[in-house]
Amino acid sequence: MISYITKKHIDRILAASGKVPAFKVQQIIADICRYNCLSAIKVAGSGHLGSSFSAMDVVVYLYFNRLNIVKKGFSSPDRDIYFSSKGHDVPGLYSVFYALGILDDSALFTLRRYKGLDGHPDVGTKGIESNTGSLGMGLAKAKGMAWAKSKLKSDGHVYVLLGDGELQEGQNYESFQNIAHQKVDGLTAIVDRNRIQTDKLTDHIISLGDLKSKVSSFGWEVMEADGHNYDELDKAIAKRHTIKGKPVLIIANTTKGKGVGFMEYDGSGPLYNWHSGAPDDVNFMKASDELFLKIQEQLSAAGIAAVEKTDVPGQGQRTTGGKASKEFVSKAYGETLVKLAPGNERIVVLDGDLSADCKVRDFENAYPERFIENGIAEQDMVSTAGGLARSGFLPVVNSFASFLVSRANEQIYNNACEKTKIIYACHFAGLLPAGPGKSHQSVRDISLLSAIPNIEIIQPSCGDEARMITEYAVNEAKDNVAIRMVIGPSPRLLKLPEAYKLTRGRGVVLKEGNDGLLFAYGPVMINESLLASDILKRVGYNLKVVNMPWLNRFDIQWLSKHIAGQKNIFVLEDHSTRGGLGEMMLRSLTEAKAMPDSFNLKIFGIEDEFPVCGTPWEVLAHHRLAGADLAKRIFGKDIDASLIESSVEEVYTVDAPQ
Amino acid sequence: MISYITKKHIDRILAASGKVPAFKVQQIIADICRYNCLSAIKVAGSGHLGSSFSAMDVVVYLYFNRLNIVKKGFSSPDRDIYFSSKGHDVPGLYSVFYALGILDDSALFTLRRYKGLDGHPDVGTKGIESNTGSLGMGLAKAKGMAWAKSKLKSDGHVYVLLGDGELQEGQNYESFQNIAHQKVDGLTAIVDRNRIQTDKLTDHIISLGDLKSKVSSFGWEVMEADGHNYDELDKAIAKRHTIKGKPVLIIANTTKGKGVGFMEYDGSGPLYNWHSGAPDDVNFMKASDELFLKIQEQLSAAGIAAVEKTDVPGQGQRTTGGKASKEFVSKAYGETLVKLAPGNERIVVLDGDLSADCKVRDFENAYPERFIENGIAEQDMVSTAGGLARSGFLPVVNSFASFLVSRANEQIYNNACEKTKIIYACHFAGLLPAGPGKSHQSVRDISLLSAIPNIEIIQPSCGDEARMITEYAVNEAKDNVAIRMVIGPSPRLLKLPEAYKLTRGRGVVLKEGNDGLLFAYGPVMINESLLASDILKRVGYNLKVVNMPWLNRFDIQWLSKHIAGQKNIFVLEDHSTRGGLGEMMLRSLTEAKAMPDSFNLKIFGIEDEFPVCGTPWEVLAHHRLAGADLAKRIFGKDIDASLIESSVEEVYTVDAPQ
Repeated sequence: MISYITKKHIDRILAASGKVPAFKVQQIIADICRYNCLSAIKVAGSGHLGSSFSAMDVVVYLYFNRLNIVKKGFSSPDRDIYFSSKGHDVPGLYSVFYALGILDDSALFTLRRYKGLDGHPDVGTKGIESNTGSLGMGLAKAKGMAWAKSKLKSDGHVYVLLGDGELQEGQNYESFQNIAHQKVDGLTAIVDRNRIQTDKLTDHIISLGDLKSKVSSFGWEVMEADGHNYDELDKAIAKRHTIKGKPVLIIANTTKGKGVGFMEYDGSGPLYNWHSGAPDDVNFMKASDELFLKIQEQLSAAGIAAVEKTDVPGQGQRTTGGKASKEFVSKAYGETLVKLAPGNERIVVLDGDLSADCKVRDFENAYPERFIENGIAEQDMVSTAGGLARSGFLPVVNSFASFLVSRANEQIYNNACEKTKIIYACHFAGLLPAGPGKSHQSVRDISLLSAIPNIEIIQPSCGDEARMITEYAVNEAKDNVAIRMVIGPSPRLLKLPEAYKLTRGRGVVLKEGNDGLLFAYGPVMINESLLASDILKRVGYNLKVVNMPWLNRFDIQWLSKHIAGQKNIFVLEDHSTRGGLGEMMLRSLTEAKAMPDSFNLKIFGIEDEFPVCGTPWEVLAHHRLAGADLAKRIFGKDIDASLIESSVEEVYTVDAPQ
Repeated sequence: MISYITKKHIDRILAASGKVPAFKVQQIIADICRYNCLSAIKVAGSGHLGSSFSAMDVVVYLYFNRLNIVKKGFSSPDRDIYFSSKGHDVPGLYSVFYALGILDDSALFTLRRYKGLDGHPDVGTKGIESNTGSLGMGLAKAKGMAWAKSKLKSDGHVYVLLGDGELQEGQNYESFQNIAHQKVDGLTAIVDRNRIQTDKLTDHIISLGDLKSKVSSFGWEVMEADGHNYDELDKAIAKRHTIKGKPVLIIANTTKGKGVGFMEYDGSGPLYNWHSGAPDDVNFMKASDELFLKIQEQLSAAGIAAVEKTDVPGQGQRTTGGKASKEFVSKAYGETLVKLAPGNERIVVLDGDLSADCKVRDFENAYPERFIENGIAEQDMVSTAGGLARSGFLPVVNSFASFLVSRANEQIYNNACEKTKIIYACHFAGLLPAGPGKSHQSVRDISLLSAIPNIEIIQPSCGDEARMITEYAVNEAKDNVAIRMVIGPSPRLLKLPEAYKLTRGRGVVLKEGNDGLLFAYGPVMINESLLASDILKRVGYNLKVVNMPWLNRFDIQWLSKHIAGQKNIFVLEDHSTRGGLGEMMLRSLTEAKAMPDSFNLKIFGIEDEFPVCGTPWEVLAHHRLAGADLAKRIFGKDIDASLIESSVEEVYTVDAPQ
């Protein structure tokens, strides 16, 4: 049973501030927020515990002592501003918002749900000052806000929290340099120095060295404080406000997972388990009980009456599990790399602190001398790959598509100009999982690579095809290859025809039919296509479904053959409808005069809006991309509910890595 | 008359090394290289003098004392590697290549010409180790090369030259951090510390502060040397090679424009005039004479026989001038911003060290309190704009399209997610000027923005339209606006119909015709379209030409009306044919069933290759986009030469800002 501690109790405890030292009370509030945050993540099925907990005391200290936002209101130009640049600690912030009355009970447990609280901060949520989630942007955004306050002569101070792993992103150093030069006053940067990134020590991934001297050398005043000690935080912030004309960074030394013994880093092992994802039931209960006991002990010691647990409403809703297969296309990719490595000494794998999520940890362990851990520094990683490729190596660059292809876009282009060959493994491509929100959902990456002439973009529909594509990329491709991979388990185990061989520019027919032809790619959209085709069959509409793994290379002859005779042509993008497979293929086929006369065309995908956050089935439904929606859109009219399987959503899991 | 000093003289002087101290001889060689470089830039009509001259002694020192490349050959894995990360000093490098015999006389004066020497380094040129030109990538690429050498146990050392302005790019700090952590040995970074960027002091734009302590704080050994003193350089490099296990940076203190008195920085004024562009005839002769005299004096003092000048062959070819108009769309844009500023206090202009090129210097001077000079730090600039927009300002962000939209792509997306409004002024968009090469030619930017749902991309065809678009962007647009602007003068003064008003999603008919319909945008391609239409008229083919400034917003009804009855439809992109106007418009019109039955379609543009370097007429011809080429491609067969105006190229100038 998942429970939380209500605002009523929080208000009662806060009222004790007169008798009990305020910081003592706030420490208890922080643990209550941890308790509620843990439950919210458990209900959501995913979320970032570790840094929600490490940052919690800093956040509680600021909101209960320094920020005037509750008094001024969120639209006041004179308000103080706080936001986290790393952003994935936002479940912790939501629980503080609940304690402050900014969010109510019904909102708190909508974490990562449709129309609920985004997995990374979004300004659509009350109290959120900035969209973050991709790293390194916060300092600059804070600079803009502080510049605005100064220009408008408004009151209020801007506090921005940085992760320490985040300080591997180069943009931070642009901002350190520029804020100092531009003499932008009125902002304070705080580092949540928990010394752990995704699952390893920052010192192991890319050490920050002597952070204090590093940031000082940029002309900043740097202080340190125990990030869990309210007196120390108070002293540092008080001192900060005596400093004028020089930007200030406070290094808050914290413990990742703070508050739950077994989630705290104890320095003994290199792998940290609680960065993201919800704990399983056993660990959840263990953590929850420990926090609850600690809260009660503190209350008792302070002479404040104990709190009670309240059951989280609506726990019946399934959020994890589902009938998803155990197949990960990225696992097949990672295994293939390991398999090919002995025969090809040129392969070097590069990683941006996502080795486990990108399924290259086996390669890392098996071939450490050919594995470059590059930290959260995508630009450096991609240009390093450029240098390796110029020296005869075959670099395989790994990160999430939304970061790799976007943050390092110019670097990818620069490498491509050298006409070497590099493999870009673009993980977490597409709409799902949608819990992490729009900073992580990658629905622009095809368009971001499409105008580079020598990059082939290919996406596997299943593990078997991932193996073929990886082998093709390593052994056969002449050009650069971007392998676009869904990160979640494949919703179904797709069985490709026995005789199927990956052939440049060609797809493979999964279902025959004469009433319409649908092109799709990737496990998620192929699954919805097949669901749609099943439903359509029941109304007598035979949809031909083609898996088209080649997203920007077309065998016009093969395609023409399969289009011949079809009057209704559809493309289903796991991407924006702009700049994806559909537009590129349509152009090529139209120029080749391979399209039939007066055909109907519809490209399905993310259409003129941002991808929404939520569970897979919520989000597919919102974008009208679930099988049933597609069936109706293809059929052109409503389909009787009895003909639609109700179990559509059961094939997905909401477990999200980030 | 433009002249140079031949290899014969250089070899004779080098042969004196036995009698005259080698460094003395090399200093003379460096001045000869400066002389030849100046002539090459004058012949080319553009190029970067200032930093070619400041880096010259470092380059000559390295090639004549440290690098084994002439001995080992450029394909040897054991060769030493040198490249410049900033890249725009490459005319200087070419002149050193000539002195070394890597390039011959016929190659030296093909700077910025088709199939000649690219305006920024390209590995297609013998001796060039890496494509650079966009800043901040060199350290990482050097890292990859040094890692490869170490892995392969090859000989050779990697030297990478950085600009000091370049150190405003955050990617450098990723690399400083990562190289130190990864203990990559075998590379040396050298900073050409000439203290000047485009036209202002680095200390004025964004100060690097105490560079030595800054880079030291990243765990690097930092040394300093006079970058024009061969003994000091030699001492520093020798010392560098005694250091193991710690990366080394050498700050070479240099003088921008070194070698020509009036091109050297004397500290007295803030504006530097010799960063890019060829000097006019008077200044060229003055500089050339001064260098020649200096060379002769040094030779005489060293007891070496004087050199003679040789005329540069083929000087008859016109490279500057042309019949181009005096109109710059960006000037109209900049003037409009100044005009709108008093009425709109929300406007803030941001610049990335390109104020003059982006025509916002008038705004900078008129409204310094609303102008943020952000240095070469596009990511920080864009995220700062995000913070400003969240605070109620209307930021207008300026840089070259290829840097702004690519380097800061994720930051633009992040801002867009906040649903604020920002204007991105994307300068130097499109194929021309092509002299700077593929790092600067922006033919991907439409595709890079297209999948962001709330950015309107609009490109003016002339000054009048630029004014309308700027006013629309500031006063009317609800969404973000990317204004895509050609940087060169408009090839012709386009007169739009009197009644024309900018209307969202609609173009304007420039020529009526029933044999085919061509959509185009921007001054360059509109000009070629009109030339094509003139030629086609002579063979009885009436081409309708529509100026379509809206690149991703379509008024389907308006378009349908103009497409009705047309069987031959063409789109001319100043962009890759992938992800531009054509594909997006075709999709929208096809889905709306607005395309005629069995029409012919051709999208012209940069087709499946990188944009080539050269003069405008060379490059338009290569890509088959010159009016005459278009006429033939539209007509579908050859057109008699007598019907084609021979003066096509005369409308362009090769003067290029970068």
